[in-house]
Amino acid sequence: MDEKMNTKANIKDVASKATVSIATVSRFLNGKTERMSKETALKVQAAIKELNYVPNDAARQMITKKSRMIATIVADVDDYFATEMFKGISSILDAQGYTAVLFDSDTDKNREQGILKIIGEKSFDGLIMQPMLKTEADLRVAVKRNLPTIIVDRELSDSNLANVVTNNFDISQQVTKYYMNQGFERVIVITGELSGVSTREERYSGIRSVSSDAILMEVPSADTKLSHTYDKLKNTLIRDDKRTVIFALKERWLLHLLPKIMADGFMANQQVAVTGFSDTEVIKAINPGTSLINQNPFLLGASAAELLLNELNGEIVTKNKKIIIPAEFK
Amino acid sequence: MDEKMNTKANIKDVASKATVSIATVSRFLNGKTERMSKETALKVQAAIKELNYVPNDAARQMITKKSRMIATIVADVDDYFATEMFKGISSILDAQGYTAVLFDSDTDKNREQGILKIIGEKSFDGLIMQPMLKTEADLRVAVKRNLPTIIVDRELSDSNLANVVTNNFDISQQVTKYYMNQGFERVIVITGELSGVSTREERYSGIRSVSSDAILMEVPSADTKLSHTYDKLKNTLIRDDKRTVIFALKERWLLHLLPKIMADGFMANQQVAVTGFSDTEVIKAINPGTSLINQNPFLLGASAAELLLNELNGEIVTKNKKIIIPAEFK
Repeated sequence: MDEKMNTKANIKDVASKATVSIATVSRFLNGKTERMSKETALKVQAAIKELNYVPNDAARQMITKKSRMIATIVADVDDYFATEMFKGISSILDAQGYTAVLFDSDTDKNREQGILKIIGEKSFDGLIMQPMLKTEADLRVAVKRNLPTIIVDRELSDSNLANVVTNNFDISQQVTKYYMNQGFERVIVITGELSGVSTREERYSGIRSVSSDAILMEVPSADTKLSHTYDKLKNTLIRDDKRTVIFALKERWLLHLLPKIMADGFMANQQVAVTGFSDTEVIKAINPGTSLINQNPFLLGASAAELLLNELNGEIVTKNKKIIIPAEFK
Repeated sequence: MDEKMNTKANIKDVASKATVSIATVSRFLNGKTERMSKETALKVQAAIKELNYVPNDAARQMITKKSRMIATIVADVDDYFATEMFKGISSILDAQGYTAVLFDSDTDKNREQGILKIIGEKSFDGLIMQPMLKTEADLRVAVKRNLPTIIVDRELSDSNLANVVTNNFDISQQVTKYYMNQGFERVIVITGELSGVSTREERYSGIRSVSSDAILMEVPSADTKLSHTYDKLKNTLIRDDKRTVIFALKERWLLHLLPKIMADGFMANQQVAVTGFSDTEVIKAINPGTSLINQNPFLLGASAAELLLNELNGEIVTKNKKIIIPAEFK
């Protein structure tokens, strides 16, 4: 029996058995067989099989110069939604020996461009981002290399990058129907500036598909405590006695409006109902009876990480793939 | 006039003018003059002055192999306190051409050790951390290289690393005095497990320095909605009619207890007051009259980043330096 059989084969053994260079074996192991003859590829494959060669992780890393670091960019690191998404991403990547690091674009497009440029220059193996930018071309301009990328929470136009999003349209439609069936007659939508943010646009479209005359109230960015917006809302509510649902596209708006609405007695006799997208347990703590839309940011992140791993392992084509994670209304 | 004067001098020009190697000039530029004769250092300095040589940032980076990436580790990325601290760190580092990246130890010591090991292996220039580990020795075991490090929010034992913390003891003492002066007779402290977390221990000591018989209620980790803790609290409150301050060492406890305390009418006639450490605007939204301790996580982060920059620039000795950021009671 050959002595060699008792020790673990390494990449050099494979190269010499296949009579090719170590670089060729490395290229084969990393799936870069485009510029390799079929004959060479088969020789390497046969040598690997015969020697029972298993590239270990460390060796693989050395060969590939992979950093096993994955960059994540979120729009605002202060949002619980964003950090839970990051925890979901980490949970999947950790198990595969990758480390996720978090960057904050701070809802600033220029800042995001700067971060992308740095990620492009450093040896990150992949990128998961909740984008401020609008197109894949914007991304390419900044990154300047072929970096496996998954888009999460929002959608790009003119892009075939894999994408993971909440069922924003469907859940908004479904919840609006629920209130209309309960005899509510009017919807007031509370949101930040609608235009250009795909999640908000989808949600508003879902509401309008049921209630075409839903009233849109965009909160001006200067109105931090929503006192101005509440005055506007109150004026609408007291003008007539239509039963009204107040539908907030973001938890922050509810946080400021709900205590005021409760204090002014609007919720008595189910005259006014309040609902919206909510990520934390805060609103239920203020009013346990509120029904809310809970997204699943952890699962959004985990699913994005799975897509990225598929792409990194070259197993599955992820281009144009879209995963939709249902939100819950409860 | 020398032709050379019209073009920008580079590091090679400096080396040849000083008749030393490029490596020597590089060491000089990076302040590593320990193993350089005084004569050599003076020659390099003279050549730099004569040629009016200014190392540009890119060149400096190439010379030093600095990545200009700073690692930040927080205990729980879902905490607003942690992410605001990160925003503070970024605000200072950005302006100096450094990029901060965020890691989440997820309040898991083993996970933190793994992250530290990775940071040690990669080319990060510095580290700012809110530690789970307890000593500098634990840190050194994991990082295995001389990485400039600043400790923030918590304190290590047996450590001379620079440290930025809130005035936890003083503010807790001051707030307890305030309530005692208002005629309150009893303090109930609500906290997670006290032992081993320096911030909590400092706060509790501050309270006890004024009210030595303060009642300690540690929330068991399984009691996520605090229903068990509230039952215990309620039993204590109804047993007698002592005017009581409920002092939460973390906002999350207030979030769950305050609506229950209000609903049960305990706050009528100022029989019970509620206060504590609070990072967001949530509690004021639930009850605008609550007085709270606001820390300044942004400033904590910014101050830690300034200390780190001092250390990276070799300008100021930061060892044993401690910066205390006052919290506000309002």
